[in-house]
Amino acid sequence: MGSTFGYLFRITTFGESHGGGVGVVIDGCPPRIEISEAEIQVDLDRRKPGQSKITTPRKEDDRCEILSGVFEGKTTGTPISILVRNKDARSQDYNEMADKFRPSHADATYQAKYGIRNWQGGGRSSARETIGRVAAGAIAKKILQQVAGVEIIAYVKRIKDLEAAIDPNTVTLEQVESNIVRCPNADMAEKMIDLIDLVRRDGNSVGGVVECVARQVPVGLGDPVFDKLEADLAKAVMSLPASKGFEIGSGFDGTLLTGREHNDEFYMEGERFRTRTNRSGGIQGGISNGEDIIIRVAFKPTATIMQEQKTVTVGGEETTLIAKGRHDPCVLPRAVPMVEAMVAITICDHYLRQKAIDQRSMS
Amino acid sequence: MGSTFGYLFRITTFGESHGGGVGVVIDGCPPRIEISEAEIQVDLDRRKPGQSKITTPRKEDDRCEILSGVFEGKTTGTPISILVRNKDARSQDYNEMADKFRPSHADATYQAKYGIRNWQGGGRSSARETIGRVAAGAIAKKILQQVAGVEIIAYVKRIKDLEAAIDPNTVTLEQVESNIVRCPNADMAEKMIDLIDLVRRDGNSVGGVVECVARQVPVGLGDPVFDKLEADLAKAVMSLPASKGFEIGSGFDGTLLTGREHNDEFYMEGERFRTRTNRSGGIQGGISNGEDIIIRVAFKPTATIMQEQKTVTVGGEETTLIAKGRHDPCVLPRAVPMVEAMVAITICDHYLRQKAIDQRSMS
Amino acid sequence: MGSTFGYLFRITTFGESHGGGVGVVIDGCPPRIEISEAEIQVDLDRRKPGQSKITTPRKEDDRCEILSGVFEGKTTGTPISILVRNKDARSQDYNEMADKFRPSHADATYQAKYGIRNWQGGGRSSARETIGRVAAGAIAKKILQQVAGVEIIAYVKRIKDLEAAIDPNTVTLEQVESNIVRCPNADMAEKMIDLIDLVRRDGNSVGGVVECVARQVPVGLGDPVFDKLEADLAKAVMSLPASKGFEIGSGFDGTLLTGREHNDEFYMEGERFRTRTNRSGGIQGGISNGEDIIIRVAFKPTATIMQEQKTVTVGGEETTLIAKGRHDPCVLPRAVPMVEAMVAITICDHYLRQKAIDQRSMS
Amino acid sequence: MGSTFGYLFRITTFGESHGGGVGVVIDGCPPRIEISEAEIQVDLDRRKPGQSKITTPRKEDDRCEILSGVFEGKTTGTPISILVRNKDARSQDYNEMADKFRPSHADATYQAKYGIRNWQGGGRSSARETIGRVAAGAIAKKILQQVAGVEIIAYVKRIKDLEAAIDPNTVTLEQVESNIVRCPNADMAEKMIDLIDLVRRDGNSVGGVVECVARQVPVGLGDPVFDKLEADLAKAVMSLPASKGFEIGSGFDGTLLTGREHNDEFYMEGERFRTRTNRSGGIQGGISNGEDIIIRVAFKPTATIMQEQKTVTVGGEETTLIAKGRHDPCVLPRAVPMVEAMVAITICDHYLRQKAIDQRSMS
Repeated sequence: MGSTFGYLFRITTFGESHGGGVGVVIDGCPPRIEISEAEIQVDLDRRKPGQSKITTPRKEDDRCEILSGVFEGKTTGTPISILVRNKDARSQDYNEMADKFRPSHADATYQAKYGIRNWQGGGRSSARETIGRVAAGAIAKKILQQVAGVEIIAYVKRIKDLEAAIDPNTVTLEQVESNIVRCPNADMAEKMIDLIDLVRRDGNSVGGVVECVARQVPVGLGDPVFDKLEADLAKAVMSLPASKGFEIGSGFDGTLLTGREHNDEFYMEGERFRTRTNRSGGIQGGISNGEDIIIRVAFKPTATIMQEQKTVTVGGEETTLIAKGRHDPCVLPRAVPMVEAMVAITICDHYLRQKAIDQRSMS
Repeated sequence: MGSTFGYLFRITTFGESHGGGVGVVIDGCPPRIEISEAEIQVDLDRRKPGQSKITTPRKEDDRCEILSGVFEGKTTGTPISILVRNKDARSQDYNEMADKFRPSHADATYQAKYGIRNWQGGGRSSARETIGRVAAGAIAKKILQQVAGVEIIAYVKRIKDLEAAIDPNTVTLEQVESNIVRCPNADMAEKMIDLIDLVRRDGNSVGGVVECVARQVPVGLGDPVFDKLEADLAKAVMSLPASKGFEIGSGFDGTLLTGREHNDEFYMEGERFRTRTNRSGGIQGGISNGEDIIIRVAFKPTATIMQEQKTVTVGGEETTLIAKGRHDPCVLPRAVPMVEAMVAITICDHYLRQKAIDQRSMS
Repeated sequence: MGSTFGYLFRITTFGESHGGGVGVVIDGCPPRIEISEAEIQVDLDRRKPGQSKITTPRKEDDRCEILSGVFEGKTTGTPISILVRNKDARSQDYNEMADKFRPSHADATYQAKYGIRNWQGGGRSSARETIGRVAAGAIAKKILQQVAGVEIIAYVKRIKDLEAAIDPNTVTLEQVESNIVRCPNADMAEKMIDLIDLVRRDGNSVGGVVECVARQVPVGLGDPVFDKLEADLAKAVMSLPASKGFEIGSGFDGTLLTGREHNDEFYMEGERFRTRTNRSGGIQGGISNGEDIIIRVAFKPTATIMQEQKTVTVGGEETTLIAKGRHDPCVLPRAVPMVEAMVAITICDHYLRQKAIDQRSMS
Repeated sequence: MGSTFGYLFRITTFGESHGGGVGVVIDGCPPRIEISEAEIQVDLDRRKPGQSKITTPRKEDDRCEILSGVFEGKTTGTPISILVRNKDARSQDYNEMADKFRPSHADATYQAKYGIRNWQGGGRSSARETIGRVAAGAIAKKILQQVAGVEIIAYVKRIKDLEAAIDPNTVTLEQVESNIVRCPNADMAEKMIDLIDLVRRDGNSVGGVVECVARQVPVGLGDPVFDKLEADLAKAVMSLPASKGFEIGSGFDGTLLTGREHNDEFYMEGERFRTRTNRSGGIQGGISNGEDIIIRVAFKPTATIMQEQKTVTVGGEETTLIAKGRHDPCVLPRAVPMVEAMVAITICDHYLRQKAIDQRSMS
C-alpha cells in the first residue's frame, strides 16, 4: 500500500534499486496527448546519477520503455506503463547492509514493519524509485503546458547556508540547467558547487532548499477542505526521499509579520482579479487564484557518509559502519526534477478534477 | 470532493458557518471503543470561540450530538456521525461579504471555482468546519491511547517572534491548558498573551508556530512511498485553515547541518533499537521508528483585520473594506486542538493500515 | 468502512434504524444545481413504509432536512448533508432480537464481525439506511436530467412467478406510479397485489425482479477495465438489502443464444451509430453506447416472516423465533426507488468522470 | 482511470493486446509470503490461448516475469509488478479493424469515448488484459490458502442449454482440470466439448455460466453497506470481458420461493453457528457467515464470429464485416481461472480489511 498518488491523474510506482526494474503505471491520462520516450528521457537524464562531479559517480543509463497506453505517438486514455531496467549486478558494496542498519536511513524501519527487506542499495526506499515519478511528471508537465500553458520550474534555492536571490516570476529552465547544481543564480551556483565538492572530499554531505514555481495555473484548482491544493502539494513533496519541510508563499517567515503586513490586497487587471503581493503563494482557501504558485522544500544532508558511525545490526548488536560505494554528497541537484514532477502531477490531477465539476462545460 | 480524509479511519466533514449545522461522519472506527458525547465535548470546548480574551468574543456553545454508530456507550463498527447545530441568526456583519472579497481569504477563489458561494461568515472555508475534525480527533486519540498508549500533545511554540523553549519529551496536557494561549512555557505564555492583546486592540493580527509531539507511537506505521507517515501528516495539517508551512524533526533548520552532524546514530535499549538524537522526528523512510514524532506547523496572521484594505467586488469593481464583527486576533490558541486532531486521525489511520498487513497477527 | 459509494459524485450514508437519525453526505455534487427538500421528499415518500396495504403498516414520516451544501436554493459545490430523524421509541417488538439471530438476516454476521451490534430493528442493516441513498439518488437524477436529459425509470418486472410484459423503451414514471406494486402493466399489477396480499395474510413473504431502464445516457460513460459501467451498476444494486442477482441486457438468458443470434449489428442513424438490437443492454466494453441501459435485479423474499423458525442465540443455544411487529411481505414496491437511486448515482458519477478527460472540452 | 481494483490488496493492470506487454502491479500484498514465477505460471497457462482444440488455435507463451516486490522468494510488502511480453508481430488479420467496428465488441465505444484507440486485436479491451488479473489472483489464492485454508474453485456449470449437475461442496480442482472444457461433470463435459466444436466449425459461438465456490472463508468478511462482500464480488466478475450477469446463492431462481422456503435456519455445530441450507450463498447482510460462498456468472457467446455481419465504419459508413484470424468459439474454459482470480482478489482484500478492525488482535 502507499504506492499510488493522485485521484484522477493517478500514478502507481513499482520497483526497487535491485531486481528487474523500476517504473510507473499512469492511469487517467487524457487521450490524444502526443508523448514520446524521448521527451520522458529528457527529465530522466536530469535525475540520473553520474551526471556531474557533484553527483554520485555511479553510471546508469536509465533508458525508459513505454509498454502500453500510447499508440502511434499519442496517449489512448488507457494506462501508460513505463519501465526502466535495473542493471543486474549485485554490488559487493552493499553486503554489509544485509546486517547493519544505516543511520538515518530506512533500513531499520522497513525491517521492523515488514520483517523482511530487499537490503541491496536501499531496496524500495532507494531514490531509484523516483524514476517512475519523474517519468510521470514529464507527461503531467506536457499536458499542463498544452492545455493551459502552465510552466513548472524548480531550482536550488539554498545549499546549507548559501542562499541565492532568484526571481520566481522570471526564472527560466535554461537558467536552471546552465550549471550542474541547478541554481539559476550563477554566482551563488559556483559557491554551492565548491561547497558540495568540499564536503564530498571530506566524506560528508550537505542539504538545502529547493524552490518551485508554477506559472499560468488556471484559477480554481484545489478541493477544499482536505484536498486543498497546498495540502496535496505538501504531501506530494514530503513523500520524496530526504524531505524534511514544506512551505508555501510566505511560509514560516510569514509568521513574523502582522496581518496588516501579510494580507494580499486585490485589484483588477482587466477582467481578472489579481493580488498586489503574493504571500499566499498562489493559493487561497485551498484553491489556486491565478498568481504564481511558489513552494519550498527542505532536503536534509544525505544520510550516507564516508565516515564511521555507530549503529546496530538486524540481530540487535551494537556495531559501527563506514559506508562504501559511490553516493551523492548532496541530493538537491537531482531533487530538482523530482520536485517539478510531483508538483506537475498534483496540479494535473486537480486540473482534471476541476474539469469534472466545471459548470461552464457541463452538458 | 475533497471533504474526506483517511483511508481506513476515514472522516468526512460537512457544513458551513451558516445553515443547519456542521459535523462529521467517521467510517472505519473499530468496534467496542467506549466513547461519549462528553469526551468529544472536551476537545470541542478547547476549539470553540469566546473561550478567552484573546480569542474572538463571539459566543457559541457548539454542543455535539452523536447521531449514529454508538450503542450503549460503545462504537459498533458502523459510521459514527456527529452533528453540531449552527445558530440560526444571520449576522448583519456579514452583508458586505456578499459583494466584496476579503483579502487573503477564500472568497474570491470559491466564487471563481464554483460560480456561487455561501458568503455568510466564510461558508465552507470558515474555521467552523474544523469542528468535525476535532470531534473525530477526540475519538482517534481515545483509540490510540487505549490500544497503544499513544499520547498526542500540541502547543503554541511561537507567536510572531516570541519563541518558547519547550521539551517535547516531557510536556503535559496540563501545562498546555494552564494558560489561555496554550503555550506550556509560563513566562513566554504571558508575553504572548500581552502581544496578542496588543495587536487585537490595534485591529491587527499575528501568527506563529504550533508544535505537536506524538509519544509511544508503535514502530512500523506509515506506507512508503507516497503514504509516508510524514507525507500524510503534512497533508493533514496543511489542510487546516491559515497553515503555511510544515516541518518534521530537524525541518528547515536541519538543512544547515552536515550529514555527520545530522544523522541519528542507533543504539540498543534492551531489545529495542533506539536513536541517540532525533533529528528524524520519529519517522525514517516514511515509517515510525518508535521515537517521539515531532512536527511544527506555521499559521499565518489572521486575515481578518479591523483596518481598511483595498479589494474588489464580485462584479469586478475596485473598492475598500473594513471588517466588522468579532474575530480572532490570533488563531493559534484555537489551532492547538485542531493540530492534535489531524495528527491523531493520521496516526490512527496508519495504525489500522499496519494491522491489516502485520504478519504476526495473520491467521 | 464501506459506507461510501462513488468516485467523483461520492455519497456516504450513516445511521441505524434506531438512534438519532439516518442520512447522507454527498461530496462532489456540481455547483449551481437547483435542489429543494421538497424534490428529495418525493422519492423518500416512494420509499417510506406504510404507503399502502402491501407494505409494512409501520408509519414513519421520514421528513428530510438539508443541513449544508445548498445556498439560496442552489448547490454550492460543497458537501450536501441530509438528515432524517428517527422516531425515538424503542419498540418492544425488538427485544427478542437482542438475543436471537433472525434467519437469513444480518444479525449473526454483524455480531461475529464486530463483537457488538445495535440489535434494535436491524440497526445498520435495516432498510432504513437506504433513505440516504434515495435522497442522494434524487439529486443525481436531477443533475442527469438537467445536463443530458437522462431518464431513469425502475419498476417491478416480476413477483414470484408473475412476470409482466413491459416495454422499457416507452414505459413512463406515471405508469409505474399508477398502482401500489409499481408494475406498469396494469393487469399483471393487480395479480401481483393479490399474491402479495395472500402471502401477507399467511405470515409469509415473496420476492421478484426489478427492472430499470436509463434512457438518453450519453455515449462514452464507463471506465474500463474494472470500473466498467455495468460492473459499477452491479456493485451499486448488489449493495441493496435483499438483492441476490444482477443482469444487464440479455443477461442469463442471453447465454442460450449463439453469437450469430446474440450480436447487435450496427447501423447509422444520421451522424450517430446505433444498434438494431440491444442485447448489450446499452453498454459495450464497459462503456455506454447511447442505447437504453437495461438492468434487472433479483430480490429475495423478505426474511422476516410471521411463522416459527429454528435459530440460535448470541450465546450459542438452539431456539425458535416468531417475528413480531410489522413488516413488508414483499420488498419490491419500495425497492423500486432504491434501484433508481443507485443507478442514477452510478451514472452521474461516471458522467463527471468522463467530463474530466473529455478532450473536446479540454483547455 | 478504472484500471485499479481492491482497497488494501490493490491491483492495477496495464497493457494492450499489442505493444510492449501486459501486466499488473499489486500493492498491499502482505510481506513474507513465498511466491514464485512458476506458481503464477500455472494459472497463466490455464488462461492462455491455444491450450486445446476448443480454444483459439493462436499460440502464445505468456511467460511471466516478476519485476519487483519479491526478494529471495518471498514478498517484501512493496509493490509486486509482473510483466508478460507481447509478441511483436502486427497481424494482417486486424487491419480491417482499424476502420470497421466489430458488432458487440468495444471498438465503437472506445472510439467514441477516447477519440482514438489501439485497434489491433482489441487493444485494451482484449481478453489479454486479464493476464494481469490471473497473475494477481494466483497470489491472492496463495495468501488465502496459507492464512486461512481458503479454497477457491471455479468451473463451467453450463454451456448454452447444457447444464451440469455439480456439488460445489465437494468439487475438486483435479476434477475441473480433468477435461478441456473445465466442467467437473465428465459426461456433460463431453457433450459440451462436442457442442463447442460444432459451433466452431460453423463459424459461430456459444456462451454459458461459470460457477465458483469459495470454501473455508472466515466469518466476518465484507464491509456493509456499499462494500458488502457480494457487491464487491459482483463488481469483480462483471468487470470481466463478456460477462452479462451475476448471482449469489439462490440468485434469480430464489425469487420463485416464498420466505418460508427460502430462509436458512440456524443451528449450532459445536461452538460455531451454521445454516442448514445455504440459499444465502455464504453471505448474510454483506458479511461472510462461514458457509461456502457460491456465485454464478453468465458469459455471452463470443462476439467474434466467422460469418458476415452488418456494421459501420469509423467514418460513419454502413458496411459488412467477416472476422478473420483465430478466435475462441466459447470463452468459458478460459474464463474459469479469470473468475477464480477475481473472487480470490476480492476475498483477500476483505480479509485484510477485516484484520485492520479486528478487535481481538488489537493492541
